[in-house]
Amino acid sequence: MKLCAKPLAGRSKFEAYISRSCFAASGHDGPCVEFPYLVQMTEVAPRVAAKIIRDSTKTTGAAWKSAVAGPNRMDRWGMLPLLTDQVLKEQFGIDLVAMDPAVQAKLREKAATYEDCMAVAAKLTWTAYQMRNAPVPPANLSDYLTNRFSRLESGSTRCIICRDYLDFGDFEGARRGRALIETAHSSPRAHNPDNVGFAHRDCNIAQGGRSLAEFYSWIRSIIARVDDGVSSDVEAPVSHNSTS
Amino acid sequence: MKLCAKPLAGRSKFEAYISRSCFAASGHDGPCVEFPYLVQMTEVAPRVAAKIIRDSTKTTGAAWKSAVAGPNRMDRWGMLPLLTDQVLKEQFGIDLVAMDPAVQAKLREKAATYEDCMAVAAKLTWTAYQMRNAPVPPANLSDYLTNRFSRLESGSTRCIICRDYLDFGDFEGARRGRALIETAHSSPRAHNPDNVGFAHRDCNIAQGGRSLAEFYSWIRSIIARVDDGVSSDVEAPVSHNSTS
Repeated sequence: MKLCAKPLAGRSKFEAYISRSCFAASGHDGPCVEFPYLVQMTEVAPRVAAKIIRDSTKTTGAAWKSAVAGPNRMDRWGMLPLLTDQVLKEQFGIDLVAMDPAVQAKLREKAATYEDCMAVAAKLTWTAYQMRNAPVPPANLSDYLTNRFSRLESGSTRCIICRDYLDFGDFEGARRGRALIETAHSSPRAHNPDNVGFAHRDCNIAQGGRSLAEFYSWIRSIIARVDDGVSSDVEAPVSHNSTS
Repeated sequence: MKLCAKPLAGRSKFEAYISRSCFAASGHDGPCVEFPYLVQMTEVAPRVAAKIIRDSTKTTGAAWKSAVAGPNRMDRWGMLPLLTDQVLKEQFGIDLVAMDPAVQAKLREKAATYEDCMAVAAKLTWTAYQMRNAPVPPANLSDYLTNRFSRLESGSTRCIICRDYLDFGDFEGARRGRALIETAHSSPRAHNPDNVGFAHRDCNIAQGGRSLAEFYSWIRSIIARVDDGVSSDVEAPVSHNSTS
């Protein structure tokens, strides 16, 4: 599918280093736009639309902003090697060297090109529309997503970790501010559309810092020990009377 | 094994409702003591000794103390039905009714008798001494633990979740204040020695709010879907070229 790709003026601090562009179809009507496929979602499920943009383009960063912990969120392309530590510090006020080394490494891991981030956003949108109970896209959006990826199959989207179906309603099933669906990475160290999808929050937590391959291998080893009858003290018959 | 069981004067706010007692062997020398089996551990690994006492006897409570979130930690027996909401509020300053209902339920779930808490502490100690690279207990402690449970087998302690071995050194392998070994429950809603043991932090996180039986059943279902070839979009060959 041919995209418009005309440059857009954006509001990112990193405009001097990356060039935002229009992702509408080539020859489109109306103004150029970066996320043409999120127009309906922004109306019917604004939190989901905001989540797709945020998870696609921003680092997760620290729970709180500080010199040691780093910024809360920043554009993933801001972490690319094209921005030196000095440029980050002097022009963007991000003092990487002052941060905890583990935080530095974690931020560097989140680096991704603008192009990959934008491809992730489109892929996540295509995926969200195929969840059970998702909104029905208008025909022009359905055509756009079909042309960029493949035909939408309603209700076909699965959690990339447990491989069970995802329900669009779980985006809104937030408890204490956390949705039951999260954006997850097949390998935590790569941010591109082949590697990113939605997952149940519980599954994402269980996967932790492992790749999916490592996660499956780990849980297979657990099942193997359980099936081999390896027991821990909790199951063993043990006398524990405390006062006689 | 017969324990001394003489009452002890304690510092708990709940002394009027529970009676602390001596857990040394009946006919012991020296003063009565609540945790006779933690004397050596308190010297050689004070953080582990403190953790065993804390995890055995206290609720985990809220990350921060507030009227809505509840107290940070409190004695588990303080949550028993023998303490009415009114007594908790008037005598202990814990206003259960003012808390979020989910927090109330979580605190009530943590209720355990003094006897169960003390049996958990002794069991965890017996278990810790059997981890790989654990300190070697003096003969009188080894006899005490053997008489209360069964013979100590050095290096035999396994994670109650993944069933792989635990290394005592991982108690100290703390990053950002969190040890790599945690106290875990086979069923999250029962605090007694048959149900409590040590686990890897990652395993405990993965288990989440599930019982061990539910956790094993869940990961079996994941492996079954993976082995059946059920795939998510992340694995599917997908065209995602963004600008051409």
